[in-house]
Amino acid sequence: MGKNQETEIATLGEFGLIDRLTKGAEIKNSTTIKGVGDDCAVISHTTDTETLITTDLLLEGIHFDLTYCPLKHLGYKAAVVNFSDVYAMNGTPRQITVSLGISKRFTVEHIEELYSGIRLACDVYGVDLVGGDTSASVTGLLISITCIGEGEKGKIVYRNGAKDTDLICVSGDLGAAYMGLQLLEREKAISKNSPDGDFSPAFEGHEYILERQLKPEARKDVIEELAKLGIMPTSMIDVSDGLSSELMHICKQSNAGCLVYEERIPIDYQTACMAEEFNLNLVTAALNGGEDYELLFTVNLADYEKVASMHTVRIIGRITKPEYGCMMQTRDGNEIPLRAQGWNAFNA
Amino acid sequence: MGKNQETEIATLGEFGLIDRLTKGAEIKNSTTIKGVGDDCAVISHTTDTETLITTDLLLEGIHFDLTYCPLKHLGYKAAVVNFSDVYAMNGTPRQITVSLGISKRFTVEHIEELYSGIRLACDVYGVDLVGGDTSASVTGLLISITCIGEGEKGKIVYRNGAKDTDLICVSGDLGAAYMGLQLLEREKAISKNSPDGDFSPAFEGHEYILERQLKPEARKDVIEELAKLGIMPTSMIDVSDGLSSELMHICKQSNAGCLVYEERIPIDYQTACMAEEFNLNLVTAALNGGEDYELLFTVNLADYEKVASMHTVRIIGRITKPEYGCMMQTRDGNEIPLRAQGWNAFNA
Repeated sequence: MGKNQETEIATLGEFGLIDRLTKGAEIKNSTTIKGVGDDCAVISHTTDTETLITTDLLLEGIHFDLTYCPLKHLGYKAAVVNFSDVYAMNGTPRQITVSLGISKRFTVEHIEELYSGIRLACDVYGVDLVGGDTSASVTGLLISITCIGEGEKGKIVYRNGAKDTDLICVSGDLGAAYMGLQLLEREKAISKNSPDGDFSPAFEGHEYILERQLKPEARKDVIEELAKLGIMPTSMIDVSDGLSSELMHICKQSNAGCLVYEERIPIDYQTACMAEEFNLNLVTAALNGGEDYELLFTVNLADYEKVASMHTVRIIGRITKPEYGCMMQTRDGNEIPLRAQGWNAFNA
Repeated sequence: MGKNQETEIATLGEFGLIDRLTKGAEIKNSTTIKGVGDDCAVISHTTDTETLITTDLLLEGIHFDLTYCPLKHLGYKAAVVNFSDVYAMNGTPRQITVSLGISKRFTVEHIEELYSGIRLACDVYGVDLVGGDTSASVTGLLISITCIGEGEKGKIVYRNGAKDTDLICVSGDLGAAYMGLQLLEREKAISKNSPDGDFSPAFEGHEYILERQLKPEARKDVIEELAKLGIMPTSMIDVSDGLSSELMHICKQSNAGCLVYEERIPIDYQTACMAEEFNLNLVTAALNGGEDYELLFTVNLADYEKVASMHTVRIIGRITKPEYGCMMQTRDGNEIPLRAQGWNAFNA
């Protein structure tokens, strides 16, 4: 991050920086009455919707490492993880606010790069950037994004509606982002021990897991397909902390148990290869890796045929009575309790 | 901040900490459908309102110093500064989300203390805490709060509606929070140079300016009185960066100029005494000190009598044509241009 020809943030000040970052942004949603530039953003709504609010905090040194995470990707990811929470309520993200804490080693151009990723995510998902706060920080970069979404009244899906015999479904595949992170960390360690210029990271053939880690997408497509098929999930959550942890949230809040089948857990080929190379247990990575941003949901048994027709969704088990607990049937036919080993920043 | 008998956050983890902090919170607003505990909070609304969104980021070492700022006061202030932004749109704050970054030196009890201040502010102002995000941080404490408010359709007040001949009004008094900060910084410096136990800070007689710095209030009362009197401001902003800076925002966005009278600027006696003791220019402190969280607004000339009847509000000048610029008439009758010397975190 050289500072040649770059602009120190102090030369613009907070208001100058905000002007530069938000200039020329077009409003995409008719409900965005007032974006950046007043004490509050102003949002209108129709009578048949409710408002969804979610917020995520990303801290340098805890959630991201700029050694291998490009600022544009980071901005994209910071926005998308919030959109994912709105989709997990069966809603549509509409607006975000972006607060940044910025230490002295960042220039205006760095922050523009970060913002270009945030803006790209907003363009792809049809979201308006309507406000935020920008400040100096003592150390490192921090990004706090709040997303405002819309859900249709009566169609918002909570975590607490799963019922005995419901089918458990998950979109996409799991564990890839986690294996991407392992690869990035390994190459970073090797690079540190290599003489200058004598190192090129071994990323070939691992593009998918790297993209899953560095530039995840939110499953807007799955929400749209569910609506088209007339499927209303009984419960839903996005997989940010790992499948086990999210399943246990649904079971706890729905007062239910579950049984998932190890052999049904969707895992990509690149994820499997990388796990083997690292000598890591593949299923553990898929169950507890986290940062998948897939949708985990339950549907009524009557929706079996509809949900089975979805190419992006896999049925991985079923909801049971609460006394049954949260169980996984392994490939060899044993039943073992699921354990949440979701990532805990406070132990990092 | 001793750690005797205190609980390390890692022993609870993120979910355990959130459970402990949010346990037993009662919902005050009928529009809060779902608070903490799902992917998003869910908020309903009536057809005659619009939603207001504002967010503020407070960083240790930049915005606050825990040497003299008690955690409970800090939590209270972090919430109130957001409420102030909602009142400045002529709205009512309804919900907040609270994101925290917490370094290893903080215990569960510290964070409970911080939260008790946030909860007190929510109780006083009738606001529901509906979500957030909690993470470890590499260094220090950070607080990112987003507030969701309601404004009546057609009655939301922006910064851009001031018109030539409008009266400029401000609530309360200015410069007190800034002088409180100077006092706290002085006593901190003295304390550092004193032998252990041999120091008690000279705070007597300065209670008002200390409270204005450490535990500011948002001017809910002024908004309510304006409504009762049937006054609809033509523009409004809250004074967080200093009167000069805020006046210039209103004038720029309203394409107007202004003339304020130095002798009309409301200043408390304690503020004046402290400025003299510090040999600081009192008017500069009042114009540029910031953190007053008073309301600055403009009203139509026809509302003169009504606004003059408000005990908590002072008329300090009038809006002029844009070519006139932003001017202040000094006590000796000269007109000088206002300059915004609002606090800039990037130069701190």
